[in-house]
Amino acid sequence: MTSRNVSRFWEWGKKIICVGRNYADHAKELNNVVPTEPVLFLKTPSAYLTEGSPILIPKYSNSVHHEIELGVVIGKGGTAILQSSAMQHVAGYALCLDMTARDVQDDCKSKGLPWTLAKAFNTSCPVSEFIPKERIPDPGNVKIWLKVNGQMRQNGCTSQMIFSIPFLISYISEIITLEEGDLILTGTPKGVSAVQVHDELHAGIDDVVSMTFKVGRL
Amino acid sequence: MTSRNVSRFWEWGKKIICVGRNYADHAKELNNVVPTEPVLFLKTPSAYLTEGSPILIPKYSNSVHHEIELGVVIGKGGTAILQSSAMQHVAGYALCLDMTARDVQDDCKSKGLPWTLAKAFNTSCPVSEFIPKERIPDPGNVKIWLKVNGQMRQNGCTSQMIFSIPFLISYISEIITLEEGDLILTGTPKGVSAVQVHDELHAGIDDVVSMTFKVGRL
Ligand SMILES: [Mg+2]
Ligand SMILES: [Mg+2]
Ligand SMILES: [Mg+2]
Repeated sequence: MTSRNVSRFWEWGKKIICVGRNYADHAKELNNVVPTEPVLFLKTPSAYLTEGSPILIPKYSNSVHHEIELGVVIGKGGTAILQSSAMQHVAGYALCLDMTARDVQDDCKSKGLPWTLAKAFNTSCPVSEFIPKERIPDPGNVKIWLKVNGQMRQNGCTSQMIFSIPFLISYISEIITLEEGDLILTGTPKGVSAVQVHDELHAGIDDVVSMTFKVGRL
Repeated sequence: MTSRNVSRFWEWGKKIICVGRNYADHAKELNNVVPTEPVLFLKTPSAYLTEGSPILIPKYSNSVHHEIELGVVIGKGGTAILQSSAMQHVAGYALCLDMTARDVQDDCKSKGLPWTLAKAFNTSCPVSEFIPKERIPDPGNVKIWLKVNGQMRQNGCTSQMIFSIPFLISYISEIITLEEGDLILTGTPKGVSAVQVHDELHAGIDDVVSMTFKVGRL
């Protein structure tokens, strides 16, 4: 193994910790209660996908949704990190998609089952190139957008987050120790919808990063 | 990073994939339906614990249960592995505890929320030393037991599993690519119960391995 380069966190990072319902407008569009505490779920690193390879809809789903999210890449690990020092643990960011088998998730929710099949399938975590921390001076005020086949579908701002990035880092690290290369997905604004085979997803943060993924079927 | 030694999988393995309700007698004791398909959930590698350090009950739970399980350590990775060749992907085993915040899990189940807080907290995955594959010639017929403060609590046999190890490897790898060092927790037999601070958990597979963990509080 070569030495670890945080700008290729997807090759060696061990954890993807995701926050659900972190934008009130998205919680509402799915008829979910706006949470009083972060909703956490997990993907595994085998879910990572980088540009050039397609998002693959799993055989067991007919409704895979796009969720555009700001990802936080951890630099210095830690346990029970204070909110006041949380940003010192951030190496940078990535624009990410939390691809979600919504039909399967709805079924899991109604049966009280874990979300793994809905959230952690192969290719369920497309990521942009690494964004060094300096490129986003105020992560609490970043516009993230996603177009499907050229049409704007999600166009939100991280200022709409219910739980801030420092709060999330502190909250998560109290329960699950954070390590270098870990990724936190911070939730999605409204506008999620199902993707179809051959769709082209194009997403970006203006003047910072953009990414494009095609959709295929397994 | 030094070269990877599978006998220390907990230091570098990226995934812990867990199977719930894989013993009918345990599904029944929790009033769960016996599943027709495996129930999968995730822990993260930061949950690993080896002998010498205590299991820590998280602050948010008053009912952390022990679940003794046979863990399968992946050697050769793969996607969509056939059942017929699945055992070629096994490097060995570990005796494992799937420590579960049962009160939190019950709450998640009733609210349709993911199981992360119930299952993936720090120290929620105590593991024995690595057991090379040759030491367990028939993984479908292994007695696993757990005593709490000297009293037998769980005493089952992997022959009671609903889904066999080759089936699980094939099923999981169709959805989530398996890699070297990944761990699959194969479910627990009946007899789960809450642990208390200062309890001593002693578990084993006769003539193969044993392990001891103390319980503390965060
Ligand atoms: Mg999401
Ligand atoms: Mg994981
Ligand atoms: Mg279990």
